Amino acid sequence: MHFVINREQFVHGVQHVNKAVSSRTTIPILTGIKISASQTGVTLTGSDSDISIEAFIPSEEDEKRNVEVKNEGSIVLQAKFFADIVKKLPGNEIEVSVQDQFATTLRSGSVVFNLNGLDPEEYPRLPQLEEDQTFSLPQSLLKDMIRQTVFAVSSQETRPVLTGVNLEIEDQTLSCTATDSHRLALRTAPVETNMEELEISNVVIPGKSLNELSKIVEDSEDYIDIVVTESQVLFKLKNLLFFSRLLDGKYPVTKNMIPSQSKTRMEIHTKELLNSLERALLLSREAKNNVINLKTLDQTTIEVSSVSAEVGKVTEKITTEKLEGEELRISFNGKNIMDALKVIDSEVIDIMFTGAMSPFVIRPTDHNQMLHLFSPVRTY
Amino acid sequence: MHFVINREQFVHGVQHVNKAVSSRTTIPILTGIKISASQTGVTLTGSDSDISIEAFIPSEEDEKRNVEVKNEGSIVLQAKFFADIVKKLPGNEIEVSVQDQFATTLRSGSVVFNLNGLDPEEYPRLPQLEEDQTFSLPQSLLKDMIRQTVFAVSSQETRPVLTGVNLEIEDQTLSCTATDSHRLALRTAPVETNMEELEISNVVIPGKSLNELSKIVEDSEDYIDIVVTESQVLFKLKNLLFFSRLLDGKYPVTKNMIPSQSKTRMEIHTKELLNSLERALLLSREAKNNVINLKTLDQTTIEVSSVSAEVGKVTEKITTEKLEGEELRISFNGKNIMDALKVIDSEVIDIMFTGAMSPFVIRPTDHNQMLHLFSPVRTY
Repeated sequence: MHFVINREQFVHGVQHVNKAVSSRTTIPILTGIKISASQTGVTLTGSDSDISIEAFIPSEEDEKRNVEVKNEGSIVLQAKFFADIVKKLPGNEIEVSVQDQFATTLRSGSVVFNLNGLDPEEYPRLPQLEEDQTFSLPQSLLKDMIRQTVFAVSSQETRPVLTGVNLEIEDQTLSCTATDSHRLALRTAPVETNMEELEISNVVIPGKSLNELSKIVEDSEDYIDIVVTESQVLFKLKNLLFFSRLLDGKYPVTKNMIPSQSKTRMEIHTKELLNSLERALLLSREAKNNVINLKTLDQTTIEVSSVSAEVGKVTEKITTEKLEGEELRISFNGKNIMDALKVIDSEVIDIMFTGAMSPFVIRPTDHNQMLHLFSPVRTY
Repeated sequence: MHFVINREQFVHGVQHVNKAVSSRTTIPILTGIKISASQTGVTLTGSDSDISIEAFIPSEEDEKRNVEVKNEGSIVLQAKFFADIVKKLPGNEIEVSVQDQFATTLRSGSVVFNLNGLDPEEYPRLPQLEEDQTFSLPQSLLKDMIRQTVFAVSSQETRPVLTGVNLEIEDQTLSCTATDSHRLALRTAPVETNMEELEISNVVIPGKSLNELSKIVEDSEDYIDIVVTESQVLFKLKNLLFFSRLLDGKYPVTKNMIPSQSKTRMEIHTKELLNSLERALLLSREAKNNVINLKTLDQTTIEVSSVSAEVGKVTEKITTEKLEGEELRISFNGKNIMDALKVIDSEVIDIMFTGAMSPFVIRPTDHNQMLHLFSPVRTY
């Protein structure tokens, strides 16, 4: 293998596939990045066997020459430091050549790196997916949907299926659900599907995969194609494929958990409640339980408070935009609410309480594509 | 005690004194910040017994009212979260009042914090220093001198005196020296002294104190007064006093360590050598020894190289600005050199080698107020 490549393009590709590489893998060849050169261009692959990323740098693109391939072939190079090495090379181009025994030379400017390569034949092949079940949505929308749900997945491995986000499609509407059984985040959006009647359910993508994907997806209106199979999902971006395995197991049915009526209901400025919880959490975090108390004071005002036996207590009055229904005293995990408020981009939220011991729902007031459900905390 | 204070000024003061507070102190009262109010203003104090910081917020300054004191007095409040609490209060002013049993109330906007205070009588008094030995220099120069030496102090507690920077004054010239016995950084500058013949020596300030001081000192031409006693040093800024204890023990005499002649001498672009070392360190860091090799190739060129048995090797040619004297092959700790190059603001450096087994010196070519000394590493 022998090629000369534009350094910037190479750095970009290596940084992308590097996101899939883990130094803690038990499969030695996966500590490397696979580099393959053909006349059409250079392909980079990184994988930790859960996530695999393939980046392609075409020889020519938009009438610009990125790669000059002198000999086709492939090699696997240690990923550790490789991204740093290519980033810190001084020239605009990098010459990569493989000699005997997988010995590989990188040249750029007056710098020569001689690296010990690994046998590319040992590198596992990426799955070939049947593209029966395919849908698309704008990249920026996908990025939003991930941001607005993935924070709520469980970090406990006791119920592995809850460490992922559940995807469902019905009537060309995609819904993403995440829950750790104390809180639930749901986000829906219209999608384009490859056939009108496409229905998918119980497609659970690991939260970790979505966090990595989110770093690669751009804030752009360009569409991303998503292919779903029994055990894998594939996100297809321009010159980049992102594979993730799916989580095994049956995702809980969450629809009938969401209360449809309320006993106490209030509208409140998102930012105002967020700031107030931040202050209250300073003390309840010290008490290590994150418990915040909320009570209605009169027709328009609520009080947020928290206590730390060691430090002291804080109380704060907030004037709501609207307040109706029964009087209420309730306690909850303030950090969970804060996490949700941080991903709600709307100015005002609607909170529906169904009593001090029952779950409550937060929704933005300006659209119905998102909801957050919370269990209260019993404090007496 | 009862006062109303401008929030921004209070936040600023609390952030400063908080730098001295350690949560790991064995003296419980030092986990707090002392707040004292008198008609002239509010004084804040934080201390970990090594460093003490006192910030003063005058009642009136530049015809602006900062504080309205209703009752004089003092209190100690838990430092943990206190900086966050005052920063996150919603109003422009904060009302602070102390009730019975040191119970303290902070009010701002619609927020009320009730905090458990501690007895201010228990808080240790700050030392009163004799101002016999006093000198001054611009704040920005002090900041530079700290930055250009403190990185070279020892992190090993085996010779405690080496964990500090040694200050000496002779002929109205201040010199700061730091060494961990493998490298040495020396920076000198003219200072103004309170008496013409002031000489000081063996004033060793802990590196940690200087790092904290450096965060408070501004990039300004305003002068800072420095008072030195047997066991303490005091830095006097506007409305702020910074005390540090001095390290016990005799600082080694370093003057005669510095070679005055050279066998091989080169001038080289600082940035070019820095970039080259950064690349070479990628591999020698992997080999965990940071060893870099340098050799002269011909009349103008040197080669920098490093090897990692696992990853591979890197070699790089650098064209010097000037190269004279004997041929040379030398190995050194590349990270130490890189640390020094990062604080040298000059474009070109002069390196004086005295043989492969002897210490070498790096100096900027455009002034003589700085030098860095290094021991080579024996590799064969």
